[in-house]
Amino acid sequence: LRRTNIQAEEYIRGILQGDRVRLSQAITLIESKQTQHQELAHTIIEGCLPHSGNSVRIGITGVPGVGKSTFIEALGQNVSSQGRKLAVLAIDPSSQISKGSILGDKTRMAKLSANPQVYIRPSAAGDSLGGVARKTRETVILCEAAGFDTLIIETVGVGQSEVAVHSMVDFFLLLLLPGAGDELQGIKRGIVEMADLVAVNKADGDNQQRAKRAAADYRNALHLFPPKSSNWEVQVLTCSALSGQGIAEIWHLIEEYCTFTKAKGFFQGQRQSQARYWLHETIQQFLQEQFYHHPQVATLLNERETEVLAQRKSPFHAAEELVKVFLGLEK
Amino acid sequence: LRRTNIQAEEYIRGILQGDRVRLSQAITLIESKQTQHQELAHTIIEGCLPHSGNSVRIGITGVPGVGKSTFIEALGQNVSSQGRKLAVLAIDPSSQISKGSILGDKTRMAKLSANPQVYIRPSAAGDSLGGVARKTRETVILCEAAGFDTLIIETVGVGQSEVAVHSMVDFFLLLLLPGAGDELQGIKRGIVEMADLVAVNKADGDNQQRAKRAAADYRNALHLFPPKSSNWEVQVLTCSALSGQGIAEIWHLIEEYCTFTKAKGFFQGQRQSQARYWLHETIQQFLQEQFYHHPQVATLLNERETEVLAQRKSPFHAAEELVKVFLGLEK
Repeated sequence: LRRTNIQAEEYIRGILQGDRVRLSQAITLIESKQTQHQELAHTIIEGCLPHSGNSVRIGITGVPGVGKSTFIEALGQNVSSQGRKLAVLAIDPSSQISKGSILGDKTRMAKLSANPQVYIRPSAAGDSLGGVARKTRETVILCEAAGFDTLIIETVGVGQSEVAVHSMVDFFLLLLLPGAGDELQGIKRGIVEMADLVAVNKADGDNQQRAKRAAADYRNALHLFPPKSSNWEVQVLTCSALSGQGIAEIWHLIEEYCTFTKAKGFFQGQRQSQARYWLHETIQQFLQEQFYHHPQVATLLNERETEVLAQRKSPFHAAEELVKVFLGLEK
Repeated sequence: LRRTNIQAEEYIRGILQGDRVRLSQAITLIESKQTQHQELAHTIIEGCLPHSGNSVRIGITGVPGVGKSTFIEALGQNVSSQGRKLAVLAIDPSSQISKGSILGDKTRMAKLSANPQVYIRPSAAGDSLGGVARKTRETVILCEAAGFDTLIIETVGVGQSEVAVHSMVDFFLLLLLPGAGDELQGIKRGIVEMADLVAVNKADGDNQQRAKRAAADYRNALHLFPPKSSNWEVQVLTCSALSGQGIAEIWHLIEEYCTFTKAKGFFQGQRQSQARYWLHETIQQFLQEQFYHHPQVATLLNERETEVLAQRKSPFHAAEELVKVFLGLEK
């Protein structure tokens, strides 16, 4: 334990001084599956926690092909030109297969990679989305402690990862293509309603008119949906990551959002809710992991699921029996 | 056990013969908290399961004041005039406080209550939404076994109960008022996207034009949202539960939906997914109940939550510790 504390202090000191090598090593500890690495990581995170939080956390999503990397490059260059320090993280469910792609992320964002104000860390690999999300959420803490005041967390708009990202950011941006509605085939229902800003990208050349029309359509449509609990009115803008048009306006809007939600206490309140959410969400994840990996449960579950689907057993009765077996309350 | 089986057989025989007194008594067993009632209820449900499923299950939601009771009366009379047998159930989170309101539901729907083809059962009371939803889902099984081929499950569009209802019905109907957008203040985000049909009610007298305009606006807006996994195109209609205008069209549309989704195998597939959903959802609910009621956990949780909110402890680390205490893996 004492050794862990000495080691952790070295890491914490390095991170607080903005040492990127230390930061990267600490993130690797977060991602490690070894128990002693996990323990060390927890100590480092808890040392960094009091120094974290002074930032804006931005979630960005959109289907492949919408131009996320180019957009993040353009927004990131704008942000860093104002003296801000940017960290770019990702939650990519596909990295569960590819085990992350450092090279991929860095070559996709060549300018940002070379920018000394910017830190890019690819998505962690993991067995479950919950695990990957957890690691990203903890990485946010370390990045903030290392002095990064702007965080972008990127994800692909096709699965449950948006819910995870939405639960760890202050501002959620959905990128769409000018062909309004067309690419929604690839976006999961419910994601549009999470957005604080919808940006129609690739509004350049021949696309400009189409992008404007698409933006107007979305603006009308979003008015017909229930208001956000922040009372922030969802904005719809056009932009071109390629030409840079609209990028400054988007950053301006994010700043406006922060001012608006901080004045009403919503910004801080949402962060507290998110911390509480992750506590209870993680409890649930751990309980489920233990449950589904319990050998006796796993065998019985297959049987019971078959019976439920064949309408021989009620799902509720089956669930009750399985939980009793798990907790040793029966048999 | 033998006595339970004999008792259960009497109930099952009665229910299968359409005996409403037996049906009501069995539902009361489902709602009971006594262990022996619960066991008897499980046996009855499992006896009814093979005879259930031959129905259309319709979820209806909308804010208070939208005219749900009048609408259900109008739709219900239409349905029963075609020789169908209708059961009306409800999931009302407020019944957790009022412990259900039999009188309320029956006086709200005076005509349906007097209709011999129709069975109305008020919302079960319960400690948690999960518990209430569970009881309603099991009540559906018994009603179907008793020969009811049309089920309406009503809820109020203000909370998590829609998610529960959506997970136990084939078709989800959202009722809105003619003042497009106005009453959305009361509807939770995400509910609009669950609907298979949006019906603008109270389209009578002076409201007719406003209702038509509102319907057109919603129609346009819904086109800009991702398609449903059923590939069913969400419809928007106007109706007046008071004058009866549009009610026959709505029933026709529900029949069309069933034909459409049955032809593609979606209807049956969705019911299977729902059964699986309830199995795993209930496992989760039971695990959480056990966890949060664990005395040692409850004490420690308060402490840890305070530390998490004060940024002294990471939510993930706290969750891990708590689950270990719960499962007796530590201390």
